[in-house]
Amino acid sequence: MKTLHIDLGERSYDITIDHGLLDRAGEAIKAVCPKAKKLFVVTDSTVQPLYLHRLRKSLGNAGFKALVCGVVPAGEHSKSPELLTRLWEDMMEFGLTRTDAVVALGGGVVGDLAGFAAATILRGVDFIQIPTTLLAQVDSSVGGKVAIDLAHGKNLAGAFWQPKAVLMDPETLKTLDDKTFADGMAEVIKYGCIADREFFHFLCAHPTRAQIMENIEHVLYTCCDIKRSVVESDERDTGARMILNFGHTVGHAFERLGNYETWTHGQAVSAGMCAAVQLGFGLGVMDSDEGIQDLMDLLSAFGLPTHIAIDACTPEGVDAWNLVVETIGLDKKGAGDDLTMIFLKRMGQALPVKMKRDKVLENLEAVFGR
Amino acid sequence: MKTLHIDLGERSYDITIDHGLLDRAGEAIKAVCPKAKKLFVVTDSTVQPLYLHRLRKSLGNAGFKALVCGVVPAGEHSKSPELLTRLWEDMMEFGLTRTDAVVALGGGVVGDLAGFAAATILRGVDFIQIPTTLLAQVDSSVGGKVAIDLAHGKNLAGAFWQPKAVLMDPETLKTLDDKTFADGMAEVIKYGCIADREFFHFLCAHPTRAQIMENIEHVLYTCCDIKRSVVESDERDTGARMILNFGHTVGHAFERLGNYETWTHGQAVSAGMCAAVQLGFGLGVMDSDEGIQDLMDLLSAFGLPTHIAIDACTPEGVDAWNLVVETIGLDKKGAGDDLTMIFLKRMGQALPVKMKRDKVLENLEAVFGR
Repeated sequence: MKTLHIDLGERSYDITIDHGLLDRAGEAIKAVCPKAKKLFVVTDSTVQPLYLHRLRKSLGNAGFKALVCGVVPAGEHSKSPELLTRLWEDMMEFGLTRTDAVVALGGGVVGDLAGFAAATILRGVDFIQIPTTLLAQVDSSVGGKVAIDLAHGKNLAGAFWQPKAVLMDPETLKTLDDKTFADGMAEVIKYGCIADREFFHFLCAHPTRAQIMENIEHVLYTCCDIKRSVVESDERDTGARMILNFGHTVGHAFERLGNYETWTHGQAVSAGMCAAVQLGFGLGVMDSDEGIQDLMDLLSAFGLPTHIAIDACTPEGVDAWNLVVETIGLDKKGAGDDLTMIFLKRMGQALPVKMKRDKVLENLEAVFGR
Repeated sequence: MKTLHIDLGERSYDITIDHGLLDRAGEAIKAVCPKAKKLFVVTDSTVQPLYLHRLRKSLGNAGFKALVCGVVPAGEHSKSPELLTRLWEDMMEFGLTRTDAVVALGGGVVGDLAGFAAATILRGVDFIQIPTTLLAQVDSSVGGKVAIDLAHGKNLAGAFWQPKAVLMDPETLKTLDDKTFADGMAEVIKYGCIADREFFHFLCAHPTRAQIMENIEHVLYTCCDIKRSVVESDERDTGARMILNFGHTVGHAFERLGNYETWTHGQAVSAGMCAAVQLGFGLGVMDSDEGIQDLMDLLSAFGLPTHIAIDACTPEGVDAWNLVVETIGLDKKGAGDDLTMIFLKRMGQALPVKMKRDKVLENLEAVFGR
């Protein structure tokens, strides 16, 4: 068992990582929400048959009187205004009060949706995260960002709402298929790249799912600890937190190219990181090419793409290159004429670099062989 | 011109009260949102033809490049999840960025809806309030509470989101009809009752709309200053802020009885305050009945009801008394078996009193002559 304290003043909370923790979730929630009588659990159609019964039993044992589930369809489409409204109404139907709490059991979609509902119902109630995917455990359960998607794009309506506790049971990772596991690995590898050279080498020496699972508490703890240090210094995402976006700007373009269907988030970030290191090396931000091949080998070992040919999979009538350029330029991180991108100075150290859009474009063309 | 500083740490802001301020709104917004290029203005169908052109002109003069209006239908029904979603999408269509701002021009409905949209679009952008009704000026523009209604009730989904500035132009009150003006007076009079004996006597000595308008800067400043002192001590509404609900618990029951149509909020609060003082006197919370008749005379002078017969107007099939009892009992302020209500100790001093529900019911029956 490992515990990580996230220090955000009155919004501080603990992340607990422990095998079998799901069966002890009730007492853990009781400890942080002593006044709560009712818990509104949100989960999705994939997680419900696997883990909801165990959570339910644990909550009952801890004396929580009632429990209603908002079960949403698995997938990104559930992060919609319509489902948010349904959850709000269900919470009121359930009789949730300001001292009760919302529990998210599932991956990033469930956490984002349930978290935004918790942030806004009755102007905000307590929120507990029980992330069940590797991606959610290392990424979306730390940082307090919750959101839904709009027709205009992903995560456009949301809030900063810190959980009261994050409970991670590594056992839940066993039921992930390899593709979903690899999706999380892309973010795990990102943490090594941006902030921990030693951890990057550790990952290179453990390039299989079995080896990662043998060291899963260490892996989860290290990733969350890196994100913790970044989030604590920039809770509302106004500067330092940008380094977490390493690989995400170009990755976002890949996601859009594939209409969020061809490539998973992890696949897009994987290829996005490879493009970013090449771009950074080409622009002279990176001192040497040391580690670049290791990174590509590591990603490949988990079946993640190191290159996405932007013309290959684009819907008819869409100019792929323009879409990439537009996405990078219009990305929320870009303000005005200059573009700030996250590059590696060396393996294990990321930094934001502000540069003229033209210069980025020129080098981007070289990376994509145009 | 009067300025009131609301001290909430990094969320501090100023309320400015000045005749003709609407025509200088642009420069005032420029001063608090120096990075903003685009402003998304939300107004309603009543206010648009009266004041939008003046605001538009002022914003243009201050150099704001673009401006798109979300014009919503006048009335409480606009505080809906559907209109919130429409505003979110319109803001993205408009190209709003995290350094831009949302402006609410109108009454409480516009402020609540636009404020909640501002609190959540891109996880929160700057927000400017330009309240144009007396009720919005003295009540909803101070405190940072923003919300929409759900099918289950009013203000159930929302946030705490402080504005960057509140700009009040008393000139806008001239176009209010008497009923809407009186609606605001119910809250004005409430401030005297709960916190300022001298102000209460001032109001008793100025019991006409014309007299109030002659002293409008003093009236607005005094009300906002009282709300300021309460909000500063309890930003997230966990205790002290409850005294602002004087008259609102019973008032809320009246609103529900009339399905939010028969009585305005101000009318319901007016009769609710009268019920509350009688109840408080009956329960021995109030030392003497001094001031009770003055309060009723003052409310009457503005055409506000001092008594609402609960059986008179109730829809068929609804047990009016049960609805009143349920509303008071289920009110968010009630937690567990005890009920906390706001009473006056004497005119000019309110306090929360926790009491057994049975005792309240018994005395409530006496007030309503059952």
